[in-house]
This record gives sequence, structure tokens and C-alpha cells, in this order.
Amino acid sequence: MINTANHSAVDVSLPLAQFIQHCRWSDIPEVVRHEAKRSLLNYFSTALSACFDPTIERAAQVYGRFSVGQQATVIGRGQRLDMLTAAALNTMAANVFDFDDTHIPTIIHPTAPVAPAVFAWSETQRTSGIDLLLSFILGVEAECRIGNAVSPGHYARGWHITSTCGVFGSALATGKLLGLSARQLVWALGSASAQASGLVETLGTMSKSVSMGNAARNGMLSALLAQQDFDGPAHPLEGVRGFLNVTADAPDCQSIVDGLGERWEILNNTYKPFPCGVVLNPVLEACLGLSTHPELLQQGLGAIERIELIGHPLLRQRTDRPNVATGRESQVSAQHAVAVALTRGKAGLAEFSDQAVADTSLRALGQKISFIDDASFAVEAATVRLHLQRGQRLEVAIDIARGARAKPLSDQDIENKVRTLCEYGGSGCDPEPLIEAVWSIERAEDVGQLMQRVAGHVKS
Amino acid sequence: MINTANHSAVDVSLPLAQFIQHCRWSDIPEVVRHEAKRSLLNYFSTALSACFDPTIERAAQVYGRFSVGQQATVIGRGQRLDMLTAAALNTMAANVFDFDDTHIPTIIHPTAPVAPAVFAWSETQRTSGIDLLLSFILGVEAECRIGNAVSPGHYARGWHITSTCGVFGSALATGKLLGLSARQLVWALGSASAQASGLVETLGTMSKSVSMGNAARNGMLSALLAQQDFDGPAHPLEGVRGFLNVTADAPDCQSIVDGLGERWEILNNTYKPFPCGVVLNPVLEACLGLSTHPELLQQGLGAIERIELIGHPLLRQRTDRPNVATGRESQVSAQHAVAVALTRGKAGLAEFSDQAVADTSLRALGQKISFIDDASFAVEAATVRLHLQRGQRLEVAIDIARGARAKPLSDQDIENKVRTLCEYGGSGCDPEPLIEAVWSIERAEDVGQLMQRVAGHVKS
Repeated sequence: MINTANHSAVDVSLPLAQFIQHCRWSDIPEVVRHEAKRSLLNYFSTALSACFDPTIERAAQVYGRFSVGQQATVIGRGQRLDMLTAAALNTMAANVFDFDDTHIPTIIHPTAPVAPAVFAWSETQRTSGIDLLLSFILGVEAECRIGNAVSPGHYARGWHITSTCGVFGSALATGKLLGLSARQLVWALGSASAQASGLVETLGTMSKSVSMGNAARNGMLSALLAQQDFDGPAHPLEGVRGFLNVTADAPDCQSIVDGLGERWEILNNTYKPFPCGVVLNPVLEACLGLSTHPELLQQGLGAIERIELIGHPLLRQRTDRPNVATGRESQVSAQHAVAVALTRGKAGLAEFSDQAVADTSLRALGQKISFIDDASFAVEAATVRLHLQRGQRLEVAIDIARGARAKPLSDQDIENKVRTLCEYGGSGCDPEPLIEAVWSIERAEDVGQLMQRVAGHVKS
Repeated sequence: MINTANHSAVDVSLPLAQFIQHCRWSDIPEVVRHEAKRSLLNYFSTALSACFDPTIERAAQVYGRFSVGQQATVIGRGQRLDMLTAAALNTMAANVFDFDDTHIPTIIHPTAPVAPAVFAWSETQRTSGIDLLLSFILGVEAECRIGNAVSPGHYARGWHITSTCGVFGSALATGKLLGLSARQLVWALGSASAQASGLVETLGTMSKSVSMGNAARNGMLSALLAQQDFDGPAHPLEGVRGFLNVTADAPDCQSIVDGLGERWEILNNTYKPFPCGVVLNPVLEACLGLSTHPELLQQGLGAIERIELIGHPLLRQRTDRPNVATGRESQVSAQHAVAVALTRGKAGLAEFSDQAVADTSLRALGQKISFIDDASFAVEAATVRLHLQRGQRLEVAIDIARGARAKPLSDQDIENKVRTLCEYGGSGCDPEPLIEAVWSIERAEDVGQLMQRVAGHVKS
């Protein structure tokens, strides 16, 4: 059967495609360009951290069997695969720990599905840094705007919004690099819409990474198909049975096209200081502060009788998870997070690994936690109160956690994240030339060469 | 974030996986085996008909760039690609004209996403005909039962149900061939759930074929990942944010596991006599009868003043489409179907091609049609009444159209469909050895060799 229903009142797909087609580098404000570079640095940091994670290892083994040629770099692994496969694996690595960036209005991780696509393409065709950054910014813009239109119902229903919306970002970013016409970009949206998938149910398992990898891979494929005039529906987004109406109950179609070129969604992007659910950010910051408190250092952790976490109810709802079995689960466990931060004075990936979870002393400390819901708290605020022996109390209150929109990581913080995570991942890459290359990316004449900075080597 | 919600009351994924793992050839009734062979013959007929269709040509061009090796046959094209890519293209070809089979309760086209997967696999590893047919039957069973659980709301919402459910069929059929454990089969369902996609909005355009190809390809990939212990959620289907709850408002989970091994969904499969929406079957049958009516032959089509179509309201709702621009659209146009069948006395793929649509004399005849809704008609019934000059009336009433569940195509009909469509597609394949090989498939020791019968040759 052929769909003959009318589309929604608002035209979305074509105006969005026209914007993508016509937008030029000179249309991009400096603040947007800079935020894009911050996003890319953060992307490389998380992808480098996970290049030998078991999820990536197993995916590389299976996907690698179906890769032809060695067009593009698989980050950190000393491996080159075809551009679709390399993009998929790099997306998976960037996101597997959920340590990548967060677009606050939608909780989309915007960079992971888009950056790997444009970098993989740039390794196959000489591409300037400006063209790459422009296409990346536009892909993120589209992805986040589509996400805005279906939020919050889409994620609440169970759609893994980064995967479902990421495929559009990858399609349009790649389509921009390919120089597609607006008509072809709409077709790319059509083939992307046919591939939009990913379920919240898969979070915490390896299969989450499948939809993430597909977002980048299938978006690129959609653009390549459109380049061959492989057609699609006229209204893939706003059609009655198009992506927006099928995956959201009351999509705000208008928001996709309102203020295009005037406000930029990448300015709503944030970067995590800790590899945890964002609601844990203020808790961890408080605990790291408490971990060096002279009184606690003197008395020792054994003196802690009770720990109270005071915060927005979401804190308890999302992170009251006393018994965790895996590093992945520990990333959303307040009990583990508090215990490990107080004990080690650190809260990096090593603190949220399977090995860290196996430390039974942490579990004992975590059991001392109780939650106090206080709806007057913002999500980025929390107070941690330690009750020590003899009625003594230590307390740290965080109003706005580092990493929040109102208190973003500094450029220096992000550079340090690259250094730390690069070291953690074991690729052997030197982060300094990478950092330098990203900050100066708009001067690159052949930006694909940047990927040599993150090539790494085969694990011995 | 990690999903911690409970799953639905009914366990589905694991019992289904256990059934798939343990079901043996001896558990399959003869009538089911025979229906499976009919389904396979019908599959080869439609795949052979479309092997050089522009959709397949363009897809082969793009997908072929990312295919490594020549493991598997692309039907009719004299081309071998890797097994994932070959499976994707064969699925697209089998379904591109919507001339493939129809599982009546769900309107799933069950064979297209599953058969290409198991045949592609059989070309890479020596596989018996029995093992292939068993895995095919089980894949179809799972796919259709999952479809039952989400019907009718899922398709009505806008999900292209063959694509969204087909990926599970491919995953489990491939997993059965791989000898996966039940636990691994659940993981395969998990990675398949992360890839389930396809929108009704894309129907009538090339991009529909993308989700169809993905169903076969990504199902296979899910099984191959599971073989490497690439894990997934415990309840990918029935989880609160799993496939069933996310894509249907009130899924009937229980129906997936009720009577497994007792009733078989493939027995609800049907095969189309005409390349049109099934509601047109009785209309076309009536028109073909009228086309040879002595009175009409004597007076000529010019004598027709009015044409009345009397049928279930769905006939009008789905096919009242007076102005069609493409062959694809003409497949769901009563105006075109009636005109071409009366004029040519035939209703094959050539009658629903772009060339046929360009015939303006057909359009003039089609304009004489009016619909008369009669809810007392079954969907498989219709009456066509011709009003000729001088008040003369010719009328043919069809109670049950050929191809309906109650009046299935005979084995001979299906063989003839293979012959006709094989000729139409231009592959140069000889249909007779293929027909013979499918009817005797359970005696094949290396069933992958069957694909040599449909290899075809590069188009000159």
C-alpha cells in the first residue's frame, strides 16, 4: 500500500534540508564554532577511553568481517576499516560509557553519531577543516532540533533518543559534505527515517551500542543513497506516518524550523566531569570535597555512621541502586558513587569499572546512605551530609555542579579530560598534538589527516 | 542511564528463544513443511521479477561498495556479494513490488526478511535443506507472532510491520542455523530490537526498501553478535521499554508464546495472483472475466459508459486513486487496475509499470469508475458492474478472490508465478530446475547450491 495521507500542518523536512544545503561557514557564529571544537575534543576523549572495551572488541570482531578496504581509522585500535564500519565502531566507543556530551533539552549525546561520520568521510575524500566543522555543526543542529520536537515523550516512551535522532544528524552532515541538493537531503532524511531505531531497554547492555553505531553508519548510507537519487517520501519527518508522528504523541514540528541559523542547539551542549548519570554530578563533587576534609582524614572512613543525600527527587529515582554487579551499573548508583569517591578521592572511569564494583568495602560504605527528597533542589544541586561518631556532622552543599549548563567545563578541563581518558584507554596516543589539531581545525586543508593522531596501535 | 523497570507480567523472550533452540525437524508437521516450500517458491518468483528494478540497481551500486568478498548470490544479477549485503538486496527485490506473500492477521510479508538470510548463510557454511527449512519456518513463526502481538495498532500507527518484525525473524532463523543457546538467542533478540525500524510513510518510495533490506541484514548481524556473547537485555520484547511496549499501545504478549509448536503462523500465509493491494484481488478477477465477455468483445470498450465497483468500504478507502503517476502507485489504484485489466485481459507486473501508467487511454476508462460501499461484503469479495450503451449491464461477482486464505493459489499456480515472474525479470534463469529444487529441498545435503539456480547474469 502507498501512503496517501496528508502531512502535518507544518512543513519541516524541506525547509530543514534547504537550510542545511545553503548554510555557509560565514553564517556560523564564533561561539558556535568554538563549542563545536569543545564537543569534538570531548568526543575524542571518550572514544579513546573505550577503544579496547569488551563491547568494542566484540563488535570490531564481527563488524570487521564485513568491512571492505581500509578507508578510515578505528580510533585507538591501530585498525583501519571501511568508512561505514569505522564510523559505527567510533560512535560505539565514544558513547559506550555514556561519558560523552549531553544536549540538555533532550539528553541526546549529540556528537557520537555525527563526528565519526564526517571524520570517516574526510579520510576518503580530501576535506577542509572548515567543511568538516560546518557539516558537523549542521548535523548536530538537525539532530537536536528533531530531538526537541519529540521530547520529552519520545525518550519517556522508551526510545533511545541519541540513536533514533542521531541517524538524521549523520545523514545530513554527510549529505552536506557530499554537496547534496535540498531534494536529495530530503531523500536522505527518508532513508534515515526508515532506519531510526534504538530502545531504552537496551541500556546497560552491549546491544545499546548496536543502535548507536547504526546511527552513524546508516546516516552515512542514507546520504550515499540519496546521492544516487535513491528517493524517499516528501515528508519523512512531518508526514502523518513519518518519524515525528509515529514516535511522539504530540510532536512540536514547528520547533525544528523556528529560528534556524539564529539560535544554535550546540550551545546547549554539556560535558561530563564524571562518567556517571548527570544527577550524580553534584553528589560526586561534594564527596570529592569531603574526601579531603581534615576531620575525615583524621578519623578515617570507619567513623562514618550515616550518609544523607539531599537532592531533587530525580536523584533518588535514578540512582538509588544499592547492589550493583557491573561497572556499567555502578555509573548510575549513588551508593557506589559516594563510597568510591569518599574512599579513593577520585571519580574516573577506573572508579566505575567491574574491578571497582568488586571491592566489597565500598558496598559496606554505600549501605550507610539514605536519600532525602527535596523538590526545591535543582537537578544540578545536592547536599551530602556525613554523620560521624559522637554526633559530629560534615556537610558539603553544591548549588550548581561542574558540567552543568550554568557551570560548564572550561576548555582546560576538557583538555585534561582528553589527557586522562587517552591514558586510560591504552591506545598509546599522544593527546597533545590531537588537542592542538582540534583547536586549530579550521586551518586544516586535509582534515582527514587529524585521524592519524588517534590511530593508536593494535593491542599487544 | 540503565533501565531498571520491571518487564511485563508475561515472560516472552526466553520462552520463545527456548522454543527456537529446541524445536526439531520432526516437530514440524508435513502441512507446515509444504507451506514453507510454497512460500519459498513465491519468494524466488518475486525476487527474480525485480532483480533489475531501478531500486535494486541503485541499492546494489551503493551497498556493493561496502561488500567484502563474494560469499553469497544476489538473485538474478550474476553478482555475488558478502552474505549480509546479498541478503539485504534479495530482501529488497523480493518485496519491492509488494508482490510477495502476506500473513493475513498482520499483513506482514513474512518470507522476504527471513529466506534471504538463511540462504545467504547456507552459501557460506554447508547446510542441509532440512536445517534451512526448519530455521526458515521458525524465523517466520517468531516474526509473525511478534507481529500478532502488536497488531493492529502498530501498523496503524505507521510502523512498516514487515520491516520492524522481520528483523526478529531473521535474527532467530540465523541464530537457529548458528546453533545459538537460548540465552544467546535472547541476546540476538536484543540487538535486533535495537535495530527494528521502518515507516509506512516510506511506502511507494525507494526508501521503503532500506528498512526491508535491513530487516534481513541486521537480523543476521544480531545473531552473529550473539554468537560472540555480545549481550543484550533480559527482556528485549516484553520489557517495559522493550519492543512490544514501545511500538504498541496494548501488546498481547501472551499470544507470542501461546500454542508454540501447536499452531503454525505460516499456515496463515497467502500468495498474490496480482501485483496489487489485496483488496483489488476480487476486482481484478472480475475484470479479467469481463474482458473476455462476448458482449464486450463485440461492442468494444468504447461501449462502456459507467463502471461500478461494489465492495467493502476498505476497497474504496485503499484504492480510490484516479490519477497515478508511477507504476508503483498504480498497484493500489482501482481506476488503473480496472482499466488495464479490461483493456489488456492481463494483470501482471507489466500492467502496473511506469509504461502502463503512461497509456492515456487507460486513464480515460478509469475515470468512468464509481465506488459503492457495502459493508456486508467481505474484503475478498467484490462485484464489478459495467453499464454499456442502451442500458445494457454486464456484471461479475466474486465471493472469494483467488489468493485469499479460503481460496489459496494452488501449487501449480505458484509454479506458474515463478515461470512468469522469472521471465519478466530478465535474469535468464531457467525456472524449472529451481521449482524442482524447492519442492525437494529437504533432500538437499548442501542447500546453498540451490542458489546457483537463481544466479542469473550481469545485465548486458
